[in-house]
Amino acid sequence: MRINNKCFGVDLGGTTTKIGLFNMDGTLIEKYEVPTNKKDDGIHILDDIKVFIDQVIVEKSLDSNDIIGIGLGVPGAVTDDGIVNKCINLGWNVINVESIMKEKTNFNVKVGNDANMAALGEYWKGGAAEFSSIALITIGTGIGGGIIMNGRPINGYNGAAGEIGHVSIVYDETETCNCGKKGCLEQVASASGIVRVAKKFLNATDTDSSLRGLEDISAKSVFDEAKKGDAVASEVVAYITKYLGLALANIAGVIDPECFVIGGGVSAAGQYLVDLIAASYRKNVFHPCKDTPIVLASLGNDAGMYGAAKLVIDASKNEQ
Amino acid sequence: MRINNKCFGVDLGGTTTKIGLFNMDGTLIEKYEVPTNKKDDGIHILDDIKVFIDQVIVEKSLDSNDIIGIGLGVPGAVTDDGIVNKCINLGWNVINVESIMKEKTNFNVKVGNDANMAALGEYWKGGAAEFSSIALITIGTGIGGGIIMNGRPINGYNGAAGEIGHVSIVYDETETCNCGKKGCLEQVASASGIVRVAKKFLNATDTDSSLRGLEDISAKSVFDEAKKGDAVASEVVAYITKYLGLALANIAGVIDPECFVIGGGVSAAGQYLVDLIAASYRKNVFHPCKDTPIVLASLGNDAGMYGAAKLVIDASKNEQ
Repeated sequence: MRINNKCFGVDLGGTTTKIGLFNMDGTLIEKYEVPTNKKDDGIHILDDIKVFIDQVIVEKSLDSNDIIGIGLGVPGAVTDDGIVNKCINLGWNVINVESIMKEKTNFNVKVGNDANMAALGEYWKGGAAEFSSIALITIGTGIGGGIIMNGRPINGYNGAAGEIGHVSIVYDETETCNCGKKGCLEQVASASGIVRVAKKFLNATDTDSSLRGLEDISAKSVFDEAKKGDAVASEVVAYITKYLGLALANIAGVIDPECFVIGGGVSAAGQYLVDLIAASYRKNVFHPCKDTPIVLASLGNDAGMYGAAKLVIDASKNEQ
Repeated sequence: MRINNKCFGVDLGGTTTKIGLFNMDGTLIEKYEVPTNKKDDGIHILDDIKVFIDQVIVEKSLDSNDIIGIGLGVPGAVTDDGIVNKCINLGWNVINVESIMKEKTNFNVKVGNDANMAALGEYWKGGAAEFSSIALITIGTGIGGGIIMNGRPINGYNGAAGEIGHVSIVYDETETCNCGKKGCLEQVASASGIVRVAKKFLNATDTDSSLRGLEDISAKSVFDEAKKGDAVASEVVAYITKYLGLALANIAGVIDPECFVIGGGVSAAGQYLVDLIAASYRKNVFHPCKDTPIVLASLGNDAGMYGAAKLVIDASKNEQ
């Protein structure tokens, strides 16, 4: 490996694209954020990234020969051979992003699902840096997840591995999830799911609650009020963490990871959230996995960039 | 590879030990079955296997240099480095079976969990031979399972990957599972679980059922009567296959395998069982995984031997 080797880690989101320039040891040299241009069914997106990266190379006076490649996380299902399977958020149909981007840039390109890249980032430089097999669950607007086994992301045959948000877990759910099913984890434990559950619980009871005085209830306000001892908010938090713990226990029954990582916006609720999830997990998991640590993610919104960089670095090592 | 290369695949069970002599292409040359001697906390078990294998080598006039090694499936949790973690069935505490057996025999030895070996066997030469990533679920006295990702068994950090029998899935279960939890899949869908559910359903209703006339209700009789249209037996089968389908959908949400394989004694109920599991699976799974095939295992009780042989063959290739 040349001493000046560098790579780009790109986290392609529905609204913005994050581009990071990394050293091979995982030092983030510089990060950039640009709007994602979704016009014309997203046909400009990859060109925009290419042009931006070319600019960075010029501005930073980098030698193209020192760039080992571009890692790219996309918000959709990705198979092992880099084919992206209908990225609805971006307007894409089924396309081989890896080969298209390789051709455009002449760099080595590796593509992964954004949640898997976040998991790889947390595994490499984040909350799970001391572990080798992890399951990340990101609790944000939706619920996503990524599985890393022995340092490699698991994509799944249909690119749907780690889609923990859509396991059927609430048997008495009456409303339908965005995905068309009923009873998905995302329906109760995502940021919007938590608000939905809170409103349902408030409507079902006359119990006093500081949540009733709020103009807008958010996942954050539910956790804030629960921490202060509000009865209804505490009930909501108990309900959603019961299912999160159950979901983690189910994951353990399949792959028995060394560690669980909790990320996404809702994880700002911190150790309080982790402790409640852990209590439900330990109650529901098969005994050999009782002591598996559950930790908080630490890279925030940069995790996907880090993971994408790691993906292309690992690929370049395998090719040597 | 020498043309005469062979290996042994051993499936070490609590009652009997199956020993198979294999060609490298997976042809089973000869199989043997010997009682497992569990006396003195199972201290004689590995010696017995060594002595038996030595005899076979002499009887078959084999050249020891042609034997590439011994694969060994054991009924307990096995970590990636071949350590067996308390095999209660055999009387074993925590021991490194791989290194002990290597020393005894001077052969290369690889050790895996018996359910994982069965999965590897079905992947190699059985019902899933055309797929590369599979989840096997064995429905017998208990429920076990094994995960193969890209041709390799997943052991899990605590050797507990694929322990599908102990995912918490029946939320209103009142009785306690052998493992100490409540609501495990094994409690309703194993052979004994099916009988337990049948008795419960029969007690809860006055509905006529041919099951009432039977001296002993078995999982087989429940399926036989359900196939004939018996109302209570059909209800029991609907109940247990609902949970089996849910469990498979949960597995898909974690690893999204290319194929599911159903094995174990209860799988004798055949395509009828598979179709009912598939109906529940397709209802509960995230849409990208809707078409994942569910097939029957085909190697029966030999699957573990085949998988153990495959494990040591793969290890010998990696060392070349």
